[in-house]
Amino acid sequence: MTAIQQYLQQKVTHVEKKLEAYIAELPFDPTPLRESIAYSLMAGGKRLRPVLTLATAEALGAKEEDALPFACAIEMIHTYSLIHDDLPSMDDDDYRRGKLTNHKVYGEAMAILAGDALLTKAFGIMAESVLQAGLPPETGLEMIREGSIRAGAEGMVGGQVKDILAENKKVDLERLQDIHRAKTGDLITFSVRLGARIAGASSSQLAAVTSFAERIGLAFQIQDDILDVVGEQEKLGKPTGSDEEKNKSTYPALLGLEPSRQWVRELITEAKGCLTSEPGINASDLLAIADYLVSRDR
Amino acid sequence: MTAIQQYLQQKVTHVEKKLEAYIAELPFDPTPLRESIAYSLMAGGKRLRPVLTLATAEALGAKEEDALPFACAIEMIHTYSLIHDDLPSMDDDDYRRGKLTNHKVYGEAMAILAGDALLTKAFGIMAESVLQAGLPPETGLEMIREGSIRAGAEGMVGGQVKDILAENKKVDLERLQDIHRAKTGDLITFSVRLGARIAGASSSQLAAVTSFAERIGLAFQIQDDILDVVGEQEKLGKPTGSDEEKNKSTYPALLGLEPSRQWVRELITEAKGCLTSEPGINASDLLAIADYLVSRDR
Repeated sequence: MTAIQQYLQQKVTHVEKKLEAYIAELPFDPTPLRESIAYSLMAGGKRLRPVLTLATAEALGAKEEDALPFACAIEMIHTYSLIHDDLPSMDDDDYRRGKLTNHKVYGEAMAILAGDALLTKAFGIMAESVLQAGLPPETGLEMIREGSIRAGAEGMVGGQVKDILAENKKVDLERLQDIHRAKTGDLITFSVRLGARIAGASSSQLAAVTSFAERIGLAFQIQDDILDVVGEQEKLGKPTGSDEEKNKSTYPALLGLEPSRQWVRELITEAKGCLTSEPGINASDLLAIADYLVSRDR
Repeated sequence: MTAIQQYLQQKVTHVEKKLEAYIAELPFDPTPLRESIAYSLMAGGKRLRPVLTLATAEALGAKEEDALPFACAIEMIHTYSLIHDDLPSMDDDDYRRGKLTNHKVYGEAMAILAGDALLTKAFGIMAESVLQAGLPPETGLEMIREGSIRAGAEGMVGGQVKDILAENKKVDLERLQDIHRAKTGDLITFSVRLGARIAGASSSQLAAVTSFAERIGLAFQIQDDILDVVGEQEKLGKPTGSDEEKNKSTYPALLGLEPSRQWVRELITEAKGCLTSEPGINASDLLAIADYLVSRDR
């Protein structure tokens, strides 16, 4: 196991331990709601967003302990979005990460409500953790305000709608970037900015990590599209990924496979440059995460 | 028109004007999301919760202007809950207040996402309005924390799950009260407490308005159940309300019609007493609202 894999594994362990503590706080009644929430929240995954919050906070001098509640709040927002996206009226997915999706196990009503509860809980965790982390309360209000924008109609929810509207349609590169900026980019950017705010980042540092986050968010999405083509290609011997099946526009389809790969490399180089050119950031873990994100094969 | 009806109409006008201002702030892209949100948010209704926030804030000396954003946030949470409750996998209602439900007009996916966006926006509005209203930022964080609990798994969302689980089952009076306390009571209580916090209420005043809110919330629900029986009875000449059709337990079914009416009267008397026995509350409008709530015929 490489150093970055060890680092990520350690961070994922800390995040999952804290998530379990939040699940333990949920009311026992009604039981199916508690179980449905726990099922999706503990369904594994890369935990990219909370790890970015922790790594950014630590890179700027904050303690992991202070960042953990915020990291968990981000993961709850991400998990709610996955539960709702998988619903029959949306992407209609039966499996995620090899497990049945929430609504396949608990039914649609419970899946919708588990998502609602997770989103609601995320804001509560942010609000209750501000003073515990020794942050100025004004900073907490600003975090919540930004989270509402990046996760709402202007950001993630709006992006999901744009994505649905783009199905079976030809979209150009600009629109594709706009969709992904909103649907996945905004929450990744928020994860990083939240970490920076926990560390009391200067406005110049906040701008630097924002540029970093926007670039790795886009690179992550292009890489996802590449893997969807290449992964299937290697298995099936023909380029029919799930995106193509669903008639979704992708970067490889718009730009070609090799130019997409080249763009990912450029974005990661740029992203790393944003951090290394800014004073006061202990960037080594974030740089390693950036490299790792685009070297992954799943 | 009576004085209280005039008062309510004026408050509803102010709330709806502010809601329209928030709709105007929504992104134009994606248009269907904006339209779906506006459709349900401006679909009328009693606006009970935001009016309670305004009335409580003013009863304790705050300006309506400072309370309006919080009143709108509450109405957004209430509206999101109605959109999700109406979905085919939940109550499967085609009409609400004589208009097609959100998913009948915009489809299930858009209805779910409009609800998600409204809930998300509500927390953002609370966060951004704290300093504008001249409140201590710590108070803002406490409002958001409480909102998360009362609207989440412990409160409204949990109540909706309990309600679903109770369908076609015999529930006793204690359970029925527990369901309603969570499903509708918690948000009514939050509306009132939010108004009190905006006015910088003392802990004794906060306790008094909380007791008031809990009693009118319960009375409101019992009255709803009574109207469901009596309204239909008078029209159809037989006691078959929609609750009975859906096999939902009701107070009249558990206690009888006249004892239910008696209980409503007792709760309203108690609720009013909570306010009149506490110094520093200019209670006249709140008292009139309490009376109005249980004299209504729809």
